[in-house]
Amino acid sequence: MEHSMDSYSGEVAWRFGATNPALEVARAHSIRWLLYRIYDCLNKNDSRPMAPLGFGDPSAFECFRTAAATEDAIVAAACSGKHNSYPPVAGSTDAFSAVASYLSRDLPYDISPSDIVFTAGCNHAIETMMAVLATPGANVLLPRPGYPMYEVYAAFHGLEFRHFDLLPEKEWEVDLKGVEAFADDNTVAMVIISPNNPSGSVYSYEHLAKIAETARKLGIMVISDEVQFVFGSKPFIPMGVFGETVPVVTLGGISKRWMVPGYRFGWIAVTDPKGVLRKNNVFESIVTYRGITADPAAPIQGAIPQIIAITDKSFFAKAIGLMRGAAELCYRKLQDIDCITCSHKPEGAMSVMVKLDIAYLDGIDDDIDFCCKLATEESVVICPGSGLRMKNWLRITFAVDLLLLDDALERLKSFCLRHAKQNTKA
Amino acid sequence: MEHSMDSYSGEVAWRFGATNPALEVARAHSIRWLLYRIYDCLNKNDSRPMAPLGFGDPSAFECFRTAAATEDAIVAAACSGKHNSYPPVAGSTDAFSAVASYLSRDLPYDISPSDIVFTAGCNHAIETMMAVLATPGANVLLPRPGYPMYEVYAAFHGLEFRHFDLLPEKEWEVDLKGVEAFADDNTVAMVIISPNNPSGSVYSYEHLAKIAETARKLGIMVISDEVQFVFGSKPFIPMGVFGETVPVVTLGGISKRWMVPGYRFGWIAVTDPKGVLRKNNVFESIVTYRGITADPAAPIQGAIPQIIAITDKSFFAKAIGLMRGAAELCYRKLQDIDCITCSHKPEGAMSVMVKLDIAYLDGIDDDIDFCCKLATEESVVICPGSGLRMKNWLRITFAVDLLLLDDALERLKSFCLRHAKQNTKA
Repeated sequence: MEHSMDSYSGEVAWRFGATNPALEVARAHSIRWLLYRIYDCLNKNDSRPMAPLGFGDPSAFECFRTAAATEDAIVAAACSGKHNSYPPVAGSTDAFSAVASYLSRDLPYDISPSDIVFTAGCNHAIETMMAVLATPGANVLLPRPGYPMYEVYAAFHGLEFRHFDLLPEKEWEVDLKGVEAFADDNTVAMVIISPNNPSGSVYSYEHLAKIAETARKLGIMVISDEVQFVFGSKPFIPMGVFGETVPVVTLGGISKRWMVPGYRFGWIAVTDPKGVLRKNNVFESIVTYRGITADPAAPIQGAIPQIIAITDKSFFAKAIGLMRGAAELCYRKLQDIDCITCSHKPEGAMSVMVKLDIAYLDGIDDDIDFCCKLATEESVVICPGSGLRMKNWLRITFAVDLLLLDDALERLKSFCLRHAKQNTKA
Repeated sequence: MEHSMDSYSGEVAWRFGATNPALEVARAHSIRWLLYRIYDCLNKNDSRPMAPLGFGDPSAFECFRTAAATEDAIVAAACSGKHNSYPPVAGSTDAFSAVASYLSRDLPYDISPSDIVFTAGCNHAIETMMAVLATPGANVLLPRPGYPMYEVYAAFHGLEFRHFDLLPEKEWEVDLKGVEAFADDNTVAMVIISPNNPSGSVYSYEHLAKIAETARKLGIMVISDEVQFVFGSKPFIPMGVFGETVPVVTLGGISKRWMVPGYRFGWIAVTDPKGVLRKNNVFESIVTYRGITADPAAPIQGAIPQIIAITDKSFFAKAIGLMRGAAELCYRKLQDIDCITCSHKPEGAMSVMVKLDIAYLDGIDDDIDFCCKLATEESVVICPGSGLRMKNWLRITFAVDLLLLDDALERLKSFCLRHAKQNTKA
C-alpha cells in the first residue's frame, strides 16, 4: 500500500528531543549512574565472583532468601482470585489493618488503618512526600550522608533542600545545631533515616527526643525513614513515639526486614495523635498524590496480612544473626586496612560509612578513582562517598553472603596494600 | 521522662500545610473524585446490587477471572526465589524478550527487548511519557474524549496540552484537521488510544495511516495507548506498523487483556525502526525517568514470560466472547432509551460514549446531576461525560457480569422513563 507520505521521504524536522530539565537535575543527584560507572570498570576476564558491596540487596543471596511463609502468602493471594483488581489507595482492608497493628506495636497509642497509605516501595513513599511538600518557596532539611533518592525526588519536583550533617564522631547523630542553623521560615520538614542508612547507626531514645524537640521548636514535621532494621544491642525506637511532640510521617516497607525489595511494597504512616497533619491538609495531599500515581501490585497487597503475621518466626532470628555476623566481620576486617577508618560498628541497616585516607595511597585521586580501580583490579564494587556528598568516604554494603564478604574484604585489603605509599612491590 | 518541649506546650506555628499547586491542578483533571461523588450518592438502603458501570475493572467479576495459568505463573515466580530482588528497569531478561516477541507479532519488523521499559501499570507508562515530554514550552495533543490520566500527568508535570476531537459521527475517528490546527512549533506528540477508550471504536488501517502521515507532516511522535483489546469484526492494527513513517511510542500492559489490572504491569515500547527517538534522546529520557520511579513488582515481572505464553488459550476466546456479548447487550438495550443516543456499537475496549439528551428529561440539570440521581435511585454508577470534557455525554462501562449489566440497563431505562418529560407517573 502506497501512502502520500512518500512526499516526506526527506529528513523530517522532528520537534521533540529537548530533555526535561527537572529530569536532568534529578538524574545528577542519583547514585545509580555513578554505580553504573563503577560497574563499567569491572574486568570481564576476572574469574573471581564480583562482590556487589555497592548497594543493599541481600535477597540476591540464598542465605538471605525470604521466609517460605512470605512466598506462601503471595501464592495464597495470587490463587484467591480476590487480588486481581485495582487495589485501594487507602482504606480499611485487612492489609491496612495489619500494617497499622504492626506499626503500633512499639507506640504509646494506636495507628489507625486510615492513617496509612500504601506505596509501590519505599522510594515511592519518599517521592510522595517530596512531591507533596514541593510548594513554592518551601524547603526540606536532609541528612548528609543520606539516601540520595531524597535529593532526586526533591530536585525533580522542585523542592529546595538543604543538608544538615550527621556526626561521625558521635555515632552519626544528627547535628541539631546545624538543623537549627539551616532552617528558616520556609522549612517544612526534616528527614531522618532510622536505623541509619548509610552508617548503620541506631539512634537512642534521648537523641530522637532531641530531634523531636528541635523540629517542634522550628515548627516542622519529621519524616522518619524506618525501612531498615536493627541487629545490634540497641533497641529500635520508632520516631512515632514522639508524635505528641511533633507530627511524624513514618516511611516504611517490607523490602529490608522481609528481604523482598522486589515486591515493591511500602507505606506512609502518619503518627500524629494530635491530628496536626490532617488539620494542615498534609494527609489529604498524600492521599491525592498516591491516588494519581503507581499502586503496589494487588497480589502483594493481598499477601500483606499473612506476611506481617509471620514477623516473629525463626526467619528473623536467622536474618538478624546473619546481618550481625556480616557487620562484625566487616568492621573487624576494615580495622586492618590502613587507609580506611571505620570508627563505628553498624548495629542496623546494611552498610557502613568509612573514611578513606587518600594520603596513604599512591596514584589514587579520590574516592571515585579508588572505587573504579578497585572494581577493575579486584571485582569489588563499593559506592564512592561522593555520591552521598562525602568526598573521600566510602559506603560499604555488608548485606552479602558471608563467604563472599570475607573474600571481598580480603581483596579490598590487597588493593589498599598494593596502592599504599612506600609499598615496595615485588 | 520529661522533656523541655513542655515549654512549647502552647500552639505551635507549624510551617507546613500549603498544597503543591501542581497537585491541585492535576487533581482537578482526574475523574477519581468525580466518581467518588457519584458513589457518595448511592442509597445504602437499596438492597439491589450496586452496578459499577463507572470504570472498567472486569476482574472484580468471577466470569472475567483471569486464566488459571496466569495465577500459576505468579505462583511459580514467587516460589522460585529468583524474583525477590530489585527488578531491572530495562534489559534483556526473559520478561523483556517475551514482551518484545508479543509486540512484534503483528509488525513488519521486530521490536528488540532493548526497545522496551517496564512500568508499574499503564498509568505509570502514561506518567512517564508526560514527564519526559514536559520540557519548557512544549505541548502535546490529546484526544477528546480520552482517558483523563493524560491530562492529570501532563498538568502535574507542567506539560501544556491541547485537545483534538474524536468524531462520533465517524466512529470516533481522529479529527485530523483539528490536529493540524492545534499543533504548532512547540508540539512534540499526539496521543491516540487504540482500540479507543472510551468509545470502543477500532481504527482502520487507513485511518491509522492518515494519523501517521499527519504526525510526520507536523514532525511529532505518536503515543499509541494500546492497553485495550478488540472483540468485534475489525482487526486490531498496532500503530507501530507505521513506525517507518513516524516514531511511535506504544503504551501497553497486561491489565485489560489478561484481566489483571491489580498486577500493575505495563510497558513502553518504542516502535521506531529508523531510530529517531534514540537519536533525539527520547528513549534515554524514558529510561532515566523510569530508573528513578516505581518498578513493577519483581514476582509479576518474573511471571511475564509464562503469562505472555498463554496468550492464545481458550481464556481469551471466552473473555472476548463475554465482552462482545456485553457490548451487544449494552448497545441493544441503549437503543430503547429515548434520552440516550448510542450511535456506534463498541468493537473493543470496555466502554461506550453515549449522548444524553437532557431536553427529554424533567428536573435533571446535566450529566453529573443525571449520574448522581441515577446512583441514588437505581444504585447504578455511570461516569458523567463532563469528566471527559464531554458535557451531557455519558461513559458507560459494560465490562461487568452480564446478568448485572442487563439488570443495570433495565434500571437505567426505568430511571429515564421516570424522569422523562410528559411522563405520567402512576
